[in-house]
Amino acid sequence: MTRIDELDTPVVTVDLDAVERNVRRMQAYCDAHGLELRPHVKTHKLPELARLQLQAGAAGICCQKLGEAEVMSAAGIRDLFVTYPLIGPHKLERLRELADHCRVLVAVDSTEGVAGLARSGAAVEVLVDCDTGLGRTGTPSPRAAADLAAAVAAVPTLRFRGFMTYPAPPGAGAWLAEARALTRADGLEVETISVGGTPRARWTHEVGGVTELRVGTYVYGDRACIANGSVPEQDCALRVVAMVVSRPNRDRATLDSGSKTLTSDPAAGTDPGTFGHLVEHPDARLDALSEEHCHVDVSRCPRPPAVGDRVTVIPNHACPVSNLHDTVVAHRGGVVERVWPVGARGRSQ
Amino acid sequence: MTRIDELDTPVVTVDLDAVERNVRRMQAYCDAHGLELRPHVKTHKLPELARLQLQAGAAGICCQKLGEAEVMSAAGIRDLFVTYPLIGPHKLERLRELADHCRVLVAVDSTEGVAGLARSGAAVEVLVDCDTGLGRTGTPSPRAAADLAAAVAAVPTLRFRGFMTYPAPPGAGAWLAEARALTRADGLEVETISVGGTPRARWTHEVGGVTELRVGTYVYGDRACIANGSVPEQDCALRVVAMVVSRPNRDRATLDSGSKTLTSDPAAGTDPGTFGHLVEHPDARLDALSEEHCHVDVSRCPRPPAVGDRVTVIPNHACPVSNLHDTVVAHRGGVVERVWPVGARGRSQ
Repeated sequence: MTRIDELDTPVVTVDLDAVERNVRRMQAYCDAHGLELRPHVKTHKLPELARLQLQAGAAGICCQKLGEAEVMSAAGIRDLFVTYPLIGPHKLERLRELADHCRVLVAVDSTEGVAGLARSGAAVEVLVDCDTGLGRTGTPSPRAAADLAAAVAAVPTLRFRGFMTYPAPPGAGAWLAEARALTRADGLEVETISVGGTPRARWTHEVGGVTELRVGTYVYGDRACIANGSVPEQDCALRVVAMVVSRPNRDRATLDSGSKTLTSDPAAGTDPGTFGHLVEHPDARLDALSEEHCHVDVSRCPRPPAVGDRVTVIPNHACPVSNLHDTVVAHRGGVVERVWPVGARGRSQ
Repeated sequence: MTRIDELDTPVVTVDLDAVERNVRRMQAYCDAHGLELRPHVKTHKLPELARLQLQAGAAGICCQKLGEAEVMSAAGIRDLFVTYPLIGPHKLERLRELADHCRVLVAVDSTEGVAGLARSGAAVEVLVDCDTGLGRTGTPSPRAAADLAAAVAAVPTLRFRGFMTYPAPPGAGAWLAEARALTRADGLEVETISVGGTPRARWTHEVGGVTELRVGTYVYGDRACIANGSVPEQDCALRVVAMVVSRPNRDRATLDSGSKTLTSDPAAGTDPGTFGHLVEHPDARLDALSEEHCHVDVSRCPRPPAVGDRVTVIPNHACPVSNLHDTVVAHRGGVVERVWPVGARGRSQ
């Protein structure tokens, strides 16, 4: 029996009891509101947790990049939504191969995108991506979305499935309803309206017309989730166990976990320029990261940690932390159950 | 013959001609000023480039984490300075094993650190880390540094070698001179005074008393290096080839390279909240990153890129980019020469 407090540091730990609570809570919400839950594996990049989510009732999974989908398919997962514009000959050839083995849904937001999917010959289902405010991807108006839906439906190898957006800000419901109405007026069925994002997930039923929820971060939680109320601290499953390696002066402690362990991502809703929450020392302020050092102001800690002390960090953002590490240690109550290779780590292509 | 413009995206490319120019320039500077150059492999994490730096005249290499040193040792590199406090039984056991195979130098900044090194029985050379202003690690005063040097020298398995600091701000020379004088007064020889950091590297000879320069980022360059004048744009060797996957509106383009490809690191001396330099579209502003998307304001570009266009990003900070990717593509003039596994990627332990 190995305990996580015996492991070399820094190490990424995943509390399986907390994961199961998070999975059950989100599935129960979706079940209560008649929503299909399609978890986003970009957060954990682990076939093992994707299977857990499917067993709990998820309708399928989402992948952000095709490389993630290839890993999940190789692990036997057969219903994959790649929520990303697939552009260029490499991606289209790989998509065609993937679609030979699984049910594949893809997002599209441009005529170039539809033309590529058509050329690829891949037999896939297509959701038209809608820009309901983020300005990142998506068709710019309900009319443009409906026109693209018609272009998709005109391609024999493609099946138009519906619309997606990320996130779903106020107004997204009306936007999507208009796209759906225009598309139905064009004689097309709209089976799926899919929205995403953990922070506002628990209000998805208020958006109107939504059939599917895509969420990733909820499975692990992080400091941003604590701040936006989507995951309480005790359910933050992914934590980095770190060590104090220096106390350069009375007010400062330095941990062995820098941006190459925690990432430099901020956490919306927290003090800007802070990089995590120190569980054992909640008054500590993680106020800078070097690549391999976390700089901590311990001046307000009643009993600041000493060199050699082990501490636990809840990172600002769990998803990119998964992507930095070759393995994560799954445990229950601190007892190691599994060391999982992060199967889809680094699959940004 | 494969060209980098035929590869799937996003892909990290390394221009070997630029690398060689950077290595030659820094080596020439050190040779001209009688400094030993000890390149920091945290930037590239590649045994192949460490060997290139050694062949060009470097005295040895630096590693930030023991895991990097283990990879470099396994690749046959035999003179390693681990510039990091090694604390805790796991690290000390691994250090002892490493020191059986190589010349190993280590940094120490606490009596706990010295006690651990003593207990380990590892036969290593030791530099006392000096906090000359950063407040990250290091002894807080020249007197404390000299006292720690004496503690090191009292341990039969350890050899006191000298002092190190990072970076070397104005005043570091006087700080280090005082530590050296106090240590000499204690009857100890100070063979090495080691300072680090690419931005101020070219003024190392003005610090006074320095014998060794530790630098990492100079080998690749990045947007921060362009801003601080240490590496010109044409010598920025590490670049990410990306693709435009969406043009959600007239003013916006979206690339397939987000924080999981480029990291969220800022670049000192550049517009805050921007995340890279777009070589083909210098008027573009990379103004946000999602995990897999780069959000680009193209409103000031005379000919903004279209969906499917390939573009080249010089990242804000090269070092964490290396650490995200399993491989980098080494090329000359765009013709692929090698695909290197990033040997020490993810070695944060």
